[in-house]
Amino acid sequence: MKSARPKVLHEIAGRPMIGHVLAAIEGLAPARRVVVSGPDTQALLAGAVAPVPVAVQAERLGTADAVKAARATLDGFAVGTVFVLFGDTPFIRMETLRAMAAAREEGAGVVVLGFRAADPTGYGRLIRDEGGALARIVEHRDANAEERAVDLCNAGVMAIEAGRLFRWLDRIGNDNAKGEYYLTDIVALALADGARASVIEAAEDELLGVDSKRDLADAEARWQRARRIHAMEEEGAILLDPQSVWFSHDTALARDVSVGQNTVFGPGVTVGEGAVIKPFCHLEGCVVHAGATIGPYARLRPGSAIGEGARIGNFVEVKNARFAAGAKANHLSYIGDAEVGAEANIGAGTITCNYDGYSKYRTLIGPRAFIGSNSALVAPLEIGAGALVAAGSTVTEDVAPDALALARARQETRDGGAARFREAKAAEKAAREKKSK
Amino acid sequence: MKSARPKVLHEIAGRPMIGHVLAAIEGLAPARRVVVSGPDTQALLAGAVAPVPVAVQAERLGTADAVKAARATLDGFAVGTVFVLFGDTPFIRMETLRAMAAAREEGAGVVVLGFRAADPTGYGRLIRDEGGALARIVEHRDANAEERAVDLCNAGVMAIEAGRLFRWLDRIGNDNAKGEYYLTDIVALALADGARASVIEAAEDELLGVDSKRDLADAEARWQRARRIHAMEEEGAILLDPQSVWFSHDTALARDVSVGQNTVFGPGVTVGEGAVIKPFCHLEGCVVHAGATIGPYARLRPGSAIGEGARIGNFVEVKNARFAAGAKANHLSYIGDAEVGAEANIGAGTITCNYDGYSKYRTLIGPRAFIGSNSALVAPLEIGAGALVAAGSTVTEDVAPDALALARARQETRDGGAARFREAKAAEKAAREKKSK
Amino acid sequence: MKSARPKVLHEIAGRPMIGHVLAAIEGLAPARRVVVSGPDTQALLAGAVAPVPVAVQAERLGTADAVKAARATLDGFAVGTVFVLFGDTPFIRMETLRAMAAAREEGAGVVVLGFRAADPTGYGRLIRDEGGALARIVEHRDANAEERAVDLCNAGVMAIEAGRLFRWLDRIGNDNAKGEYYLTDIVALALADGARASVIEAAEDELLGVDSKRDLADAEARWQRARRIHAMEEEGAILLDPQSVWFSHDTALARDVSVGQNTVFGPGVTVGEGAVIKPFCHLEGCVVHAGATIGPYARLRPGSAIGEGARIGNFVEVKNARFAAGAKANHLSYIGDAEVGAEANIGAGTITCNYDGYSKYRTLIGPRAFIGSNSALVAPLEIGAGALVAAGSTVTEDVAPDALALARARQETRDGGAARFREAKAAEKAAREKKSK
Repeated sequence: MKSARPKVLHEIAGRPMIGHVLAAIEGLAPARRVVVSGPDTQALLAGAVAPVPVAVQAERLGTADAVKAARATLDGFAVGTVFVLFGDTPFIRMETLRAMAAAREEGAGVVVLGFRAADPTGYGRLIRDEGGALARIVEHRDANAEERAVDLCNAGVMAIEAGRLFRWLDRIGNDNAKGEYYLTDIVALALADGARASVIEAAEDELLGVDSKRDLADAEARWQRARRIHAMEEEGAILLDPQSVWFSHDTALARDVSVGQNTVFGPGVTVGEGAVIKPFCHLEGCVVHAGATIGPYARLRPGSAIGEGARIGNFVEVKNARFAAGAKANHLSYIGDAEVGAEANIGAGTITCNYDGYSKYRTLIGPRAFIGSNSALVAPLEIGAGALVAAGSTVTEDVAPDALALARARQETRDGGAARFREAKAAEKAAREKKSK
Repeated sequence: MKSARPKVLHEIAGRPMIGHVLAAIEGLAPARRVVVSGPDTQALLAGAVAPVPVAVQAERLGTADAVKAARATLDGFAVGTVFVLFGDTPFIRMETLRAMAAAREEGAGVVVLGFRAADPTGYGRLIRDEGGALARIVEHRDANAEERAVDLCNAGVMAIEAGRLFRWLDRIGNDNAKGEYYLTDIVALALADGARASVIEAAEDELLGVDSKRDLADAEARWQRARRIHAMEEEGAILLDPQSVWFSHDTALARDVSVGQNTVFGPGVTVGEGAVIKPFCHLEGCVVHAGATIGPYARLRPGSAIGEGARIGNFVEVKNARFAAGAKANHLSYIGDAEVGAEANIGAGTITCNYDGYSKYRTLIGPRAFIGSNSALVAPLEIGAGALVAAGSTVTEDVAPDALALARARQETRDGGAARFREAKAAEKAAREKKSK
Repeated sequence: MKSARPKVLHEIAGRPMIGHVLAAIEGLAPARRVVVSGPDTQALLAGAVAPVPVAVQAERLGTADAVKAARATLDGFAVGTVFVLFGDTPFIRMETLRAMAAAREEGAGVVVLGFRAADPTGYGRLIRDEGGALARIVEHRDANAEERAVDLCNAGVMAIEAGRLFRWLDRIGNDNAKGEYYLTDIVALALADGARASVIEAAEDELLGVDSKRDLADAEARWQRARRIHAMEEEGAILLDPQSVWFSHDTALARDVSVGQNTVFGPGVTVGEGAVIKPFCHLEGCVVHAGATIGPYARLRPGSAIGEGARIGNFVEVKNARFAAGAKANHLSYIGDAEVGAEANIGAGTITCNYDGYSKYRTLIGPRAFIGSNSALVAPLEIGAGALVAAGSTVTEDVAPDALALARARQETRDGGAARFREAKAAEKAAREKKSK
């Protein structure tokens, strides 16, 4: 991956790849989950997957050895099924895992996930008996011509009888070229033990792995393509140019939401019916209620909620702030750590001064308040319902409901002052030039 | 469409689909136009297509019944041609309609638009006689093998002799599976009445319909693709990345206009020769004159005009304001309801306070005026030619030509004040922590 | 090109086409370079390619005549090689030119660049003898069937023995349909003179020319595609959506740089390891050091340097300013001609007033200084280490280290003032309406 970051923590749709895999298995409500990591990446992984525990595989001794690293976490599971998945195959679907679970419930000791490869070269082949049960897995290099003609390949993903898993694992040897312990060998051991092995098939692209930053970009593109179609066909949203709308794994759009060109949805965004997102918006961790209008060039950051019919305009940043119904901040403003009442109007260039270098403070703006343009609101601050702040004011004290606050200097106008300024500047320049000669 | 909005009001290139159809027919200078709507969508349609009247089809009794709904509007047209078009086929071309009109003038009582379908399954086939005249339309389900081999299909669009239209319509029956009155049947009636029927062919993609939000996105993409090529090949514009430039139906670019990545043209934009639109701009209802430079991140809203060689820079919003030649607003400003004179310079962070919660007021800035940064200009306001406003001023009174206006507080500096502030904050914090123990 | 600009000055990746050609030949460390221009475009070209001299071809008398125009510049080169290249083939590679130079060193008097054309119609064919040497060039119209079957075509690019170049050129005649002097004829003259002619092959797309604005867009797209893959595969950057990242010819990214959607790199940008560029950024002529975070919606202009772990946030423009490690300007600010010390914090809406209409002045902000929101800093200005500027201040005088500066008016609050304002406005409106009746 040409990266200092563990591969499985690279993100697709705003979620690490391993997060996608954990979300898929979550659909089966597992009693316990465990991530196996190398010693070098343990700390980073632990932070990313918590509360799922991370077990450490001390040395890279093969896939069977990796599963053994989970033994302590899984000990005591005498019944049920253990799934073995890969952290870098983010497209695996819950439905596929359910089919594997069902095959286990029908009595298979091992269920192996297979796929029909467009080009099977290099993959292990799943050889089945007449009844369709898995007879054996043959590595490509060991396969004869007939076996090589089989296009059903081993995806490596397995669902294994919990009660016998570690017993079988302990019997897997490493008498092979690389001296590694391969999980694949569990099939032969299970069959020898009288267990049945089954195959569940998945589409090849469900098993797409990511091995480089280019793969990562391709996987992201694939994910986005499917998500855009879902937005139009299932959610009923209008995407003006689907290719320039980017979703996160958990974005939720209601019917008739209109999404302009170049919209980025970070994680945690919900948009209500008929809301309009104009071009060049970036939304993250926020709720946009029905009929609100956002952008263009609006930046909604985590903790924001925009009420029904409210309006956040261009070059406006909102952070951890709630706008009640019909409130407006249309131009060039920063509204952070604030409550804005219904129908309040925040003028262009308004800044909430929410941070003094030590703490963050809140600004409360009452319903129907009118904040004049280019004002600075120094928090903690409360501006009452229907109050008015004159343009250009720096407000440091609370303003009562229906009161008027002014905090600006008296204007002084000097006739001819600009002309004199220009003359002085011209003289300065002439002097400089004379000097430099 | 999974939408509360009537299908034909969904937009392509910033214009409702039905607007595209009305624009195509407008090219034939029709004496009268009428839109037929269901009762539920009448009000919305009427607002969108005005001044074209909307006739109501009370019940969905078929295409012939829909045309009958237009009877009152069209009554009295004893000569001429009535075109029947569909509101959801926005790609129909004026040239095609002209060809249909020409065929009518050559004596055909009914002219039917046909297309060669890549896959004709499901479409009615246009069966012609040896002379090329239309002999009959056969529905797919009624067609024999020979007829099914015909790939010339019925598009549904017709041009009909006005004098006999309603007579024929009244004879159309509804003795069919759905109990509907089909306009298609008019061909047989016209032929029986001794009229001639002709076929005009159009390309299949000209008849592309829109039936879902995904179709809508595809139609928009198709429209944009063609428009981008037109911009480069016919208008002579430079598009740095054509795929990231979005046009409206009425955008007009002159030669050597340079358009950066991620430019959105809303309706009503004209750009003069050699103007430069930098990336991330959003223009709407405005004129950009030759040699002006816009953006990046400039937002031009309706009623704006940017003069020759003028400059609107980043994070600047202009609304209903005129910039004369060479005027500049380069950074983080909101200029609304204003006139800015030639060579005037508006500093970073300038806000015109054009709204007091009740009315909008104008700001007039004279030629060569210099507005210092972070100023608020409270309208109504007039700043004379060559006047100077000091940075950080809130200007509420007019400034005479060549005068200097200041409206800011005197600076007070407290030695060690920051250090004391930090000590106080640290003490506060320590007290809080002690308390919370 | 439908343009007032010379074709070869149209840009790809932020560099004129002819600049790409000059960069390719630069890899051979040529002793002298010269650009040949028509008389009308000489001045524009000279400005763009300086310090490379521009020779003028007085009339368009063919390619050989064009090379003759370079005679004065090249006179005195009795040994070595003269390369003849075209200004509108920006994809030619240094490696190809090196191969041509090697062939010259092996003794060829003329080396001709060829390519295998997918469709050779119209191109001159390179006919080789059994030994692989170039025997002759046959124009398409003069070629027989056997020659037309040859797909190796003449690219026009040549490397010629300097000592005999002009002697051969002078012998080229213009006895042809157009009455022009063709460089191609030099091959026959060289062979007649006993010199050897060789062929070097290049890929067809390396010789892609640009003849229209659509070609230009296609060439740019091709360049960007290759550059994006390079960013991911060679530099190890993460591109969230490669299609929406645009590079310049000289962009340099380090490992694990993350680049969000819709990023535009203008010329002269270097980004350090692990830096994060959020969506909608526009960077130009700047250095972003390791671990810095930029954007979304950040505009970095020439002369900017953002230190390790520093942070430039949304709607912030930085021009000719250096941010030391850990410094921050997170919202809606313009920082121009400034030095910002380590860990300094610049509040939302801060503007450096660096221009008085005559000169630009610098603002120096010390380490750990805290600039309150919505402040205007009137340069020349120095704010000391650890100093604090209160929100809403317009600062015109230097602030000592650890001092506190305030420059804002005292707040005045009028109870019921907003209510009275609304009543007055309502009365005004009623009066207006009464009057207009």
